[in-house]
Amino acid sequence: MRRVESRLRVRYAESDQMGVVYYANYFVWMEIGRVDYCSQLGFEYRDMEAADGIFLVVTDARCRYRRAARFHDPIRVVTWVSESRSRTIRFSYEIRHAEDDRLLATGETLHTVCDRDGKTVRLPEKYRPFFPLTSTA
Amino acid sequence: MRRVESRLRVRYAESDQMGVVYYANYFVWMEIGRVDYCSQLGFEYRDMEAADGIFLVVTDARCRYRRAARFHDPIRVVTWVSESRSRTIRFSYEIRHAEDDRLLATGETLHTVCDRDGKTVRLPEKYRPFFPLTSTA
Amino acid sequence: MRRVESRLRVRYAESDQMGVVYYANYFVWMEIGRVDYCSQLGFEYRDMEAADGIFLVVTDARCRYRRAARFHDPIRVVTWVSESRSRTIRFSYEIRHAEDDRLLATGETLHTVCDRDGKTVRLPEKYRPFFPLTSTA
Amino acid sequence: MRRVESRLRVRYAESDQMGVVYYANYFVWMEIGRVDYCSQLGFEYRDMEAADGIFLVVTDARCRYRRAARFHDPIRVVTWVSESRSRTIRFSYEIRHAEDDRLLATGETLHTVCDRDGKTVRLPEKYRPFFPLTSTA
Repeated sequence: MRRVESRLRVRYAESDQMGVVYYANYFVWMEIGRVDYCSQLGFEYRDMEAADGIFLVVTDARCRYRRAARFHDPIRVVTWVSESRSRTIRFSYEIRHAEDDRLLATGETLHTVCDRDGKTVRLPEKYRPFFPLTSTA
Repeated sequence: MRRVESRLRVRYAESDQMGVVYYANYFVWMEIGRVDYCSQLGFEYRDMEAADGIFLVVTDARCRYRRAARFHDPIRVVTWVSESRSRTIRFSYEIRHAEDDRLLATGETLHTVCDRDGKTVRLPEKYRPFFPLTSTA
Repeated sequence: MRRVESRLRVRYAESDQMGVVYYANYFVWMEIGRVDYCSQLGFEYRDMEAADGIFLVVTDARCRYRRAARFHDPIRVVTWVSESRSRTIRFSYEIRHAEDDRLLATGETLHTVCDRDGKTVRLPEKYRPFFPLTSTA
Repeated sequence: MRRVESRLRVRYAESDQMGVVYYANYFVWMEIGRVDYCSQLGFEYRDMEAADGIFLVVTDARCRYRRAARFHDPIRVVTWVSESRSRTIRFSYEIRHAEDDRLLATGETLHTVCDRDGKTVRLPEKYRPFFPLTSTA
């Protein structure tokens, strides 16, 4: 299973009054991971939406928080596809401090493949090579 | 000039590690003020976009910060139209603590009336009564 | 189990280019639900942090998305405590369209009770009446 | 006047239903510009806050929007100090599309030097070399 890395630095805007990254922002980092996953595999998520009218709509999202990230921390997001079916794709993530490699959070997001009208569709064959079907036996 | 009031409570997500509201969030509150301004005058900003394809695109935004807002503070946003021309509208705002009425910030946003393609257009006559032309002499 | 309701209206800032609410923002709404839960039960979350140095640190957060929320939709968040132990509290949420009551999302967040230094502690007796221990048999 | 460049890529979370970057997010990018400005000149903004208790509190912020930024656009933020006095610092910014170099926005933020208690203070001598006083004659 291909694993793709993203790098980012924690923004001041992402901190909260507890002095750590506000919990919802980890899901923004997962989105960055997904977009980079597509780029590194060979297509742009932007184009899939704009040119082909295919949207990966989130239907389930989860994050387990282990250690707090703080302003200015360098972050590494590792993203991979943990499940791929005809109409759904599951991404998994590890979010780590980029210097000492300690695990900050893990997460998953489940997506349904939709067309412009929000109707569930099969992933077009054009994109299947990037998301080979996983056996679930 | 009609002045419209909005009420909100500061969200934890809006705080930053300085323990106060992150400065960009005041512009989100101004957006709430604009939307409420439309509602209270008798139309919905949502409908202007969706039904008539008219967008008030921001071309200039400014905020002067006087006192910090903090998590859970009750906030009052006062919104009015300070300038209205054929193709532009300027909103002005006062942001106050809703209990002791102290001024937290003032702001202005300038908007160009645009169609779906982003082209500048005259505000349709249908909406002119809500934005009477101001003299600029 | 006491259920508390929060009301909000979707902000323009919360929408994304798919024309629906960006998925991370549902977790901000859950935070609003938690804060209102505390208020309606008789104490302020703000005071628990500021006066008593007790923080409910999120260790797990999940959201299942059923139907998209859109700009200007009136939203109702229903919040309740689904599990309460000596050092952890689990909140559960239903997020509904406030007019037609259709379910938009469900979620849960698990929190560890921490002191100012981030150390896990027992929930002080003062707050226990608001979070009666749940049996887990 | 030293000019410092930051690079970023527009996040999906930063788009709104108009299909462009939500206007408040440009101020987040200016914050990234300021933080990078400090790093490239030789100190970390984080350390100025944490170690020396010096905060650059925003008192005025402005952005003029020229062209819309969109999801996945590569962005270049150019940051410089346009005014520096004993107790205030003004940063100026140009925000450009990183590929074709077209100007998307310009902005300024004015900051008051404050201590941990929010009291205005003179910028400590230690940091003065990074912010040489500008003549205002």
